[in-house]
Amino acid sequence: MATVVQTIQRASATTIAGLAEAGVATVHEAQGRIGCLASSMRPIYPGARIAGSAVTISAPPGDNWMVHVAIEQLREGDILVLAPTSPCDNGYFGDLLATSAMARGCRGLVIDAGVRDIRDLTQMGFPVWSRAISAQGTVKETLGSVNVPVVCAGQLVEAGDVIVADDDGVCVVRRADADTVLAAARKRMEAEEAKRQRLAAGELGLDIYDMRGRLEEKGLRYV
Amino acid sequence: MATVVQTIQRASATTIAGLAEAGVATVHEAQGRIGCLASSMRPIYPGARIAGSAVTISAPPGDNWMVHVAIEQLREGDILVLAPTSPCDNGYFGDLLATSAMARGCRGLVIDAGVRDIRDLTQMGFPVWSRAISAQGTVKETLGSVNVPVVCAGQLVEAGDVIVADDDGVCVVRRADADTVLAAARKRMEAEEAKRQRLAAGELGLDIYDMRGRLEEKGLRYV
Amino acid sequence: MATVVQTIQRASATTIAGLAEAGVATVHEAQGRIGCLASSMRPIYPGARIAGSAVTISAPPGDNWMVHVAIEQLREGDILVLAPTSPCDNGYFGDLLATSAMARGCRGLVIDAGVRDIRDLTQMGFPVWSRAISAQGTVKETLGSVNVPVVCAGQLVEAGDVIVADDDGVCVVRRADADTVLAAARKRMEAEEAKRQRLAAGELGLDIYDMRGRLEEKGLRYV
Amino acid sequence: MATVVQTIQRASATTIAGLAEAGVATVHEAQGRIGCLASSMRPIYPGARIAGSAVTISAPPGDNWMVHVAIEQLREGDILVLAPTSPCDNGYFGDLLATSAMARGCRGLVIDAGVRDIRDLTQMGFPVWSRAISAQGTVKETLGSVNVPVVCAGQLVEAGDVIVADDDGVCVVRRADADTVLAAARKRMEAEEAKRQRLAAGELGLDIYDMRGRLEEKGLRYV
Amino acid sequence: MATVVQTIQRASATTIAGLAEAGVATVHEAQGRIGCLASSMRPIYPGARIAGSAVTISAPPGDNWMVHVAIEQLREGDILVLAPTSPCDNGYFGDLLATSAMARGCRGLVIDAGVRDIRDLTQMGFPVWSRAISAQGTVKETLGSVNVPVVCAGQLVEAGDVIVADDDGVCVVRRADADTVLAAARKRMEAEEAKRQRLAAGELGLDIYDMRGRLEEKGLRYV
Amino acid sequence: MATVVQTIQRASATTIAGLAEAGVATVHEAQGRIGCLASSMRPIYPGARIAGSAVTISAPPGDNWMVHVAIEQLREGDILVLAPTSPCDNGYFGDLLATSAMARGCRGLVIDAGVRDIRDLTQMGFPVWSRAISAQGTVKETLGSVNVPVVCAGQLVEAGDVIVADDDGVCVVRRADADTVLAAARKRMEAEEAKRQRLAAGELGLDIYDMRGRLEEKGLRYV
Repeated sequence: MATVVQTIQRASATTIAGLAEAGVATVHEAQGRIGCLASSMRPIYPGARIAGSAVTISAPPGDNWMVHVAIEQLREGDILVLAPTSPCDNGYFGDLLATSAMARGCRGLVIDAGVRDIRDLTQMGFPVWSRAISAQGTVKETLGSVNVPVVCAGQLVEAGDVIVADDDGVCVVRRADADTVLAAARKRMEAEEAKRQRLAAGELGLDIYDMRGRLEEKGLRYV
Repeated sequence: MATVVQTIQRASATTIAGLAEAGVATVHEAQGRIGCLASSMRPIYPGARIAGSAVTISAPPGDNWMVHVAIEQLREGDILVLAPTSPCDNGYFGDLLATSAMARGCRGLVIDAGVRDIRDLTQMGFPVWSRAISAQGTVKETLGSVNVPVVCAGQLVEAGDVIVADDDGVCVVRRADADTVLAAARKRMEAEEAKRQRLAAGELGLDIYDMRGRLEEKGLRYV
Repeated sequence: MATVVQTIQRASATTIAGLAEAGVATVHEAQGRIGCLASSMRPIYPGARIAGSAVTISAPPGDNWMVHVAIEQLREGDILVLAPTSPCDNGYFGDLLATSAMARGCRGLVIDAGVRDIRDLTQMGFPVWSRAISAQGTVKETLGSVNVPVVCAGQLVEAGDVIVADDDGVCVVRRADADTVLAAARKRMEAEEAKRQRLAAGELGLDIYDMRGRLEEKGLRYV
Repeated sequence: MATVVQTIQRASATTIAGLAEAGVATVHEAQGRIGCLASSMRPIYPGARIAGSAVTISAPPGDNWMVHVAIEQLREGDILVLAPTSPCDNGYFGDLLATSAMARGCRGLVIDAGVRDIRDLTQMGFPVWSRAISAQGTVKETLGSVNVPVVCAGQLVEAGDVIVADDDGVCVVRRADADTVLAAARKRMEAEEAKRQRLAAGELGLDIYDMRGRLEEKGLRYV
Repeated sequence: MATVVQTIQRASATTIAGLAEAGVATVHEAQGRIGCLASSMRPIYPGARIAGSAVTISAPPGDNWMVHVAIEQLREGDILVLAPTSPCDNGYFGDLLATSAMARGCRGLVIDAGVRDIRDLTQMGFPVWSRAISAQGTVKETLGSVNVPVVCAGQLVEAGDVIVADDDGVCVVRRADADTVLAAARKRMEAEEAKRQRLAAGELGLDIYDMRGRLEEKGLRYV
Repeated sequence: MATVVQTIQRASATTIAGLAEAGVATVHEAQGRIGCLASSMRPIYPGARIAGSAVTISAPPGDNWMVHVAIEQLREGDILVLAPTSPCDNGYFGDLLATSAMARGCRGLVIDAGVRDIRDLTQMGFPVWSRAISAQGTVKETLGSVNVPVVCAGQLVEAGDVIVADDDGVCVVRRADADTVLAAARKRMEAEEAKRQRLAAGELGLDIYDMRGRLEEKGLRYV
């Protein structure tokens, strides 16, 4: 059943660039507060903000063989998304694989497991979101699959879905929804800008969002 | 039972400034090794060291409505302290709320849940201590309370208590004890300075603190 | 049974320096993918890469008395390794102890518990790998042992073993194996350099490592 | 976007009964070692072994409103599967809801959150697999969805998929694969029976599965 | 600052008995969904349901000296509540202490740490709710306090508060609120009984609680 | 480096039987409060109390091949002790392996990973202490070692060490210390019996252990 799907559809480069600019929090709100991976997924260094098309990897615990297979499937602008088939914090990925992935145009890695060579990856500017940092190496003995649907850190990710990642974590956008979500995200950003200025001037959210009546109606008591 | 207490007492600004200078580790020792919040509470960026008066929020899981209510209660020098009524890692707070809180003089946020817009908060210099970073948004449907006693990350916090927070974590000082604790902290810092110089010169703690006799008496065996 | 072993054997300074240069990931691979401490052990600041001889401490929960005892046993180039006898996240160690340890030539601390005074330790350049940061102080009431074998973060560490630590975590090398491991690490680094260049040029790991035949034989299906 | 899908397809009652008889471990092996929910999902009492069609619930943290909505969608032989949209251990479900669900023919509940009224549920014989037991109640303020695809404890579950649950945990079988998986499970059970007798008689797995040659070839050394 | 408060006020025996009968889930709902200790607190054996007055213990990590001190303060019908001053899973309590506590009329133990001698405690019928079972013993070197306010598993407990504990976990009721809460709990139980019969007869919660209009108004879509 | 050590030394059957009778808590105290495995190790059913000689297994994550190899090394009265080389909760062991192990005289399994076929193992009376229950199966692709020293749940275990396990968890006794520890355990049990009777009669530990003076001296204050 170990399978490599070689042809996947991707969202347009423009849409993906727009989603990267919007960032994780805005994108996730824009699509109805869905799509965030678990908060255990943290960047290995601060400041990166990327979006790209998911090339997915389903890998056995402690076995990174399929990463090599997946790298061949990468296109410019892709992001690797690795989900182990059971919890594992091993360092599946390091500077050699990053070198190879970057040479294929890969923008980063999202992995619900461990990563290593943190210093090198930071210097190379190859961002990773992972749930662990671990030097513990892996073997290459058991097959997995590439570009099949995976559940990564609590979210279903299908090959070609758009992954957005920044200091707030990681969010997945269904490929088919990417344009709609981008439009909603842009609308949201504009609305926020106006609110930000009023809040900075000292106006209260209670008044801007007209909350006082509803709070009273629900029974909030001021003493 | 959802209540907003509008009048709270605060420690003096001078006392609070002194406690900020002393820092978390010293303050907690000075009051008898009590008051530290759980070590799961981590700053979103390194280097901040603040103290302020607690404005407390008891909020339902996944609902940040009460943050808006609490912001109206803020005075210059306050710190928001949010405790969810059951474990939740959602991002209750981001850059818009921070903008609003800063406009009211708020010095930072301590939250036993998640926070988001990390990049913006860092650029704004609004420090947060949280147990999670998460873009997952919240709703505004259920009431909570403001300025009632809460248990936050394992410690009771009452409105007006002094919160001290730095890279070591967060500590709470009862408002009524603040002056006494500050005095003890200052005494401790002076004593430490003298010891630091002797230790740097190569003298041993075993000798400075005269521990050898008691170690022998307890039965420590050198081989 | 509380014991301090005063005479321990150490690896040569040259070997230790070589292992530091190789770093955790390479060293652990070079010795057959063993020796990594649990991934919960994280550095308090990024960028440090050290190796040194272990001076071990077995300490009761919430009691740092034995750290003072251990500091007397330190030689130039040693690393303190503290394992609590049951899980504890207290801040056993801070800037005063670091001052004392540095005065004795200590290069860093590996502790399966908490540490505090993070800001000071960072400014002093005293690196620590710990599973927690906590201001919570400890007492000095109960004996432990120094330079006895301990299990720290899942690995057996004996006094005089070589500890290697960097941004990827911590690895232990048996003292007697240090030279062999260093030789293997150097061989590995050379081999990696050649591969890195080929990968950077766009060659695939699938081809460099000649994996295609074995993948097919195991049944990998391309669709 | 809150949606209730009212028409779902189910596997045949005979197939479902067969899968219940096979149990979780066998079913998961029979479909290629996939489908197991996270091991944090534990039964509230030992001994239950069930299978049924999933009626899925996507619910906000701390809000069980959608359980009432889902109960209306239940048919004889169904199993409720609840996934909160972010981690939450509240007790979403207790004896009243179980009474209602049982009246609709429901066989049990799988919930990646908390459950309560354990004593009553045990007496009623209504089995639950959950990641927490908690008396903490929930509100009914925010919508969710019913019979949409959910990720529950790390596995994608679609309405109508077959859920198998016993003392080993919970496994999901895609509805379309149910017959094939059952056939494979039966074959497996027969093969196991023969092996069990040989193993009980003292024969070794090393010999039964003819492993000695391959172990030697891989380099296993006997000393 | 180590203190033993010798005189505490208790709720009436009748009130306490009534709360025990109501059980944790009902009591917690009756007082407005507050008071539940963290869900990590589990009974060592199923089936116990007790209520009693809290005799509180604040104890250092790995030190059970204060349990002996607390036992002297016990009255018929009390429950020991132990909170360590920092996280610790040691076995603070076993069959000898239980023998002593039972001789003083103690009904059980609630401990945010470990307990041991599970087999004996089960045979003696001495119920314990703990977050760990551990044989790891403790010392008697450092003072703590008895009958001071403690935070146990996330809840403030004051000496004399009523503790209710059963298979669903543990709940605390402020002593002064005990009568009011009992009255509310009884009303709730009566209301539930009527609903249970209607639900058992197949009526839906959607109709009994008249939810359909509000669901529609919030935008729930049936497809 | 994958090795099977075929000849190991064991403690005498009488000593082992004595340690089983004493149980985990007593044995661990008798050897100076050391040897307890982490409290995450729980029995799959209550009531078992065993002791036996460790046959150790070091296994890769998600690979149970070495269990088959280890079973050949079992003698009457042995206990299998499996430590994965990195954290893994897979079900390495089920009813077929238990059948085989029992046929070789094995008394139980201690595994810092997962186990499955709980219902069958319970019916067979084959006790297991594990940190997880999981149906997730494993592969047979990568070598490990048998009867080498392992760190299991935080404790070093060498082949032939005595493992004691009961409802309180698991404890390891060095083979060479087994007789001494048993003697100390027996002395302790006798002393406890006398104390139990006095405590049951209402005498206080404060008096039996003569603690009042030392408590006062340390500064305990009664108010």
